[in-house]
Parts: sequence; C-alpha cells; structure tokens
Amino acid sequence: MKKVEIVYGIHPLIEAIKSKKIINKLFFQKGLKQGSNAYKKLINISKKENIPIQIVSKQKFFQLKNKNHQGVFALLSPIKTYQIEDLLPIFYERKINPLLVILDRITDVRNFGSIIRTSACVGANAIIIPKKSTAMIGSDSIKTSSGALFKVPICQEKNIQNTITFLINYGLKIVSATEKSNIYWYNIDLSGPLALILGNEEKGISPKNLKISCEKIKIPVIKGISSLNVSVACGIILYEVLRQRKYKSKIHI
Amino acid sequence: MKKVEIVYGIHPLIEAIKSKKIINKLFFQKGLKQGSNAYKKLINISKKENIPIQIVSKQKFFQLKNKNHQGVFALLSPIKTYQIEDLLPIFYERKINPLLVILDRITDVRNFGSIIRTSACVGANAIIIPKKSTAMIGSDSIKTSSGALFKVPICQEKNIQNTITFLINYGLKIVSATEKSNIYWYNIDLSGPLALILGNEEKGISPKNLKISCEKIKIPVIKGISSLNVSVACGIILYEVLRQRKYKSKIHI
Repeated sequence: MKKVEIVYGIHPLIEAIKSKKIINKLFFQKGLKQGSNAYKKLINISKKENIPIQIVSKQKFFQLKNKNHQGVFALLSPIKTYQIEDLLPIFYERKINPLLVILDRITDVRNFGSIIRTSACVGANAIIIPKKSTAMIGSDSIKTSSGALFKVPICQEKNIQNTITFLINYGLKIVSATEKSNIYWYNIDLSGPLALILGNEEKGISPKNLKISCEKIKIPVIKGISSLNVSVACGIILYEVLRQRKYKSKIHI
Repeated sequence: MKKVEIVYGIHPLIEAIKSKKIINKLFFQKGLKQGSNAYKKLINISKKENIPIQIVSKQKFFQLKNKNHQGVFALLSPIKTYQIEDLLPIFYERKINPLLVILDRITDVRNFGSIIRTSACVGANAIIIPKKSTAMIGSDSIKTSSGALFKVPICQEKNIQNTITFLINYGLKIVSATEKSNIYWYNIDLSGPLALILGNEEKGISPKNLKISCEKIKIPVIKGISSLNVSVACGIILYEVLRQRKYKSKIHI
C-alpha cells in the first residue's frame, strides 16, 4: 500500500491544489507572517477549493525540520503513475509529436525533481522511470520540481529495456546522452518523435540501454572538469529539441 | 578576516588538491569503507601531494551531519577572488573570446554551485558576483559545484552596474536572461565577447541592470508552469553560446 504523502512549501502546494490533488487540510505554522503575495495566493486558492486551513504549532513541523517548508504543509494521496503503453496511443490520437524522458537509474531526488520541472517547462509528454524507483516520488522531489510533478505524467515501467524496444517499434527515436559519443547534441535531428535517455549520476546509462539506442549524443565539457550535472544536461538537450522543432514548425508555445 | 573553509565530499576534495589549494590534512571517518575507485583516487592524490590523512571519529563530522560528506573533509584557506578589471586585459592578451556570467542576487547556494559547475564545463572565463555575496563561497557551493569553484575565477564587484558599464566599454555584449522579452535565446548572436546576466530566483534581474543590458533573451516555458530553475537556464544559454561559437569557428574543445 502506498503511503500518504506530505507536500510542503507554498508553490508546490498551490500546484497541488491547482492540479486537483486530493488534499483534506492545509497546515499553517502558528505565528507565520502571511503577508506575501504567494501566501495570499495559497490562501485564496484553498478557500476557492474549500480546503480548510488549520493553524498548528511548530512541533507539527518536526518531520520537516531540515526542509524549506515555508511554514505550510499538507497531506495528500499518492501521485498517480501511468504506463507508457496506455499514454502513447493517446498522444498519437491527439496528434502530439511525443517527447519523452527516460531516467535510467537516476538516484538523486533533487536531480529527479529538477528534471521533472524542466520537462514540464519544455512541454515533455511523459517521464519514464523504473518500477523500483518508487521512493523517488516523494515530498522532496515534489518540492524540487516546484510542483511540476503534478503536471507531467510519470510512467513506471518494470523493464526499461522492453519499454525502449516498444518505443522503437512505435516509431520513436531513442537518443542517449552519454560521454561515449563523438556526436554533439545539436548535430542530430531531434525534431521527430523522441525519447531521451539520461543515466545514473556516477555510472551513466547502462550498456544494454546504450546498445539499443538509435543515437548517442554528447555535450562536451572542458578537459579536467568532472561532468555536467544530469539535470542541467537534461535542460540543454530538451531545449535543443524545442529549438529544432520551432525552426521546423514555426509554432510558438 | 576570512574564515578557514571546510571542504567535504570525495570529488570536491580531489579537485581542491588538483587545484593546489593549501590543505594541511585530510580527515577520514573511522570505519569508512575505502574500496571505491573514487576513494582510492583521493588517497593516491593526497599521497602524491604529501597531504597526511588522519582517521577521526564520527563526532568530528558533527558540523556536517546533514551534508553528503561521504566520510571525508579537509580544512583549507579561503577561495581567492578577483576583479574583472584585472582579468579582462589578460583574456584579450591571450586572444580569449571572453564568456562571463554575472549573477545578480542569486541567493540559493546550490544554484550558485551548479552555475559554477556548468560554467567550468563550458569553459566560461569568469563569474561575477556582488561583493556582499561572500557568504555564498562556502563549503556547500564547493560541494554542489563538484569542486569547479577552484576552476573558474570568481570576481567580486562592489557595484555590478558599474561593472556592466565597464564591460560594455570593453566591447562585451551584455545579455540578460529574462521572461520580460520576446526574443528566444537562440535568436541572437552569442558568438562574440559576451557577459550573461542571471537574476534572483524570485525577482529576476534588477530593473537597472536590465535597462543597461544590450539584449534581453527569453527561454519559453509552457503556460501554467512556474519557471525554469536558474541553473538549468544557465546551462541552456551557455551551451547555446558554445553551439554558435563552434559553428562559426569549427574549433573543438
């Protein structure tokens, strides 16, 4: 059984409410100055959605004591996850040119949250993670994603390799971001149906997944510097996709 | 007087040693498994540089208890900072096409560290921060930057506006990343001498700095999503600079 989730911080809570998540109550810390526009926005939206606010003592924030909770939290039902097999037909039906992000053993919750936020910003259609990464979809990733975890469907797949094969059969180009390539990220066509694989912070993408990818791309770094952070690399590539697609379609988001 | 700095984590320490920082001793946590390649590398490089290793109890890590210290830390002298007025003539002398990053009131230490890391990866020549941001150059930013804080000169300037004027007079194009623009980040020429301004996480770039910028560029985001993280935005723009410069020069880094 999935645990009830704690969401904290003003913006993540506003996003959670906007996205129609089931929230029974909002908890505000006693003595909190509620003067800022962001607080007012949160109070207004909770009134509009008939979510009661309860003022609680500082002790109730004990679990969150090392978090930037901004004096507010709520309990909500677990995030809904999907299967890409169910979503892809819907994307095609809606004439969406799919842009997917596959996370191959990303372990840092902050990187996960940041990747979700960027994916939402650029309009990616889904993020695919392995089934065993359930622990990642927690309150920290909601906070780091600035609430974007409610905006992009997360697909949990048992076997990422089978998923990749499925996507290839469905006509998607599978592109791996890896240092083991000589092709720069902007030197391949990223304008069609696409799934970008991003790998583990230390080990990169697993050899099996690399092998079945259609293309491997590299973001060069100056010699002697370790490497780019994976969430920054994600932003660079996803926005290169946007750049190429805009050039081709001239449609503005 | 500047405080002695704590650096922690394997990679930041390796970078600190490689960059010839003055480290008197490395502290390893008692009972630490030192089997991984990264630990071996740290031990080897410290032997090579004649830095003694001392095994200490867990209590010595008390100050770092909420940090990902990986069981290692060291004390070192403060990071050296520069003045851009001194560096710029050197860049021109060395026929460097300058790429600078100006941080206008970035407050999150993790964003600061991540921006430094990306700037080092892309080969930016300096990062300019206001004088009052001294607190930012601490152990957390060293950790987040993966040690890259030792690789990119940090310039602390008393008055950022005066610095911008100085850079304009020196022939640099000042580009502000802001939502208050209709020009996309790839639609202006970023191949010449350049300084990119990135603004505060909440308030963006100050109006005065925006006003004296030569160009304003925007990275579009899907409607209803708050905004990109500033360190991700930094990566997207700096790598667009690299893309444009490579197209023009055909020189590979």
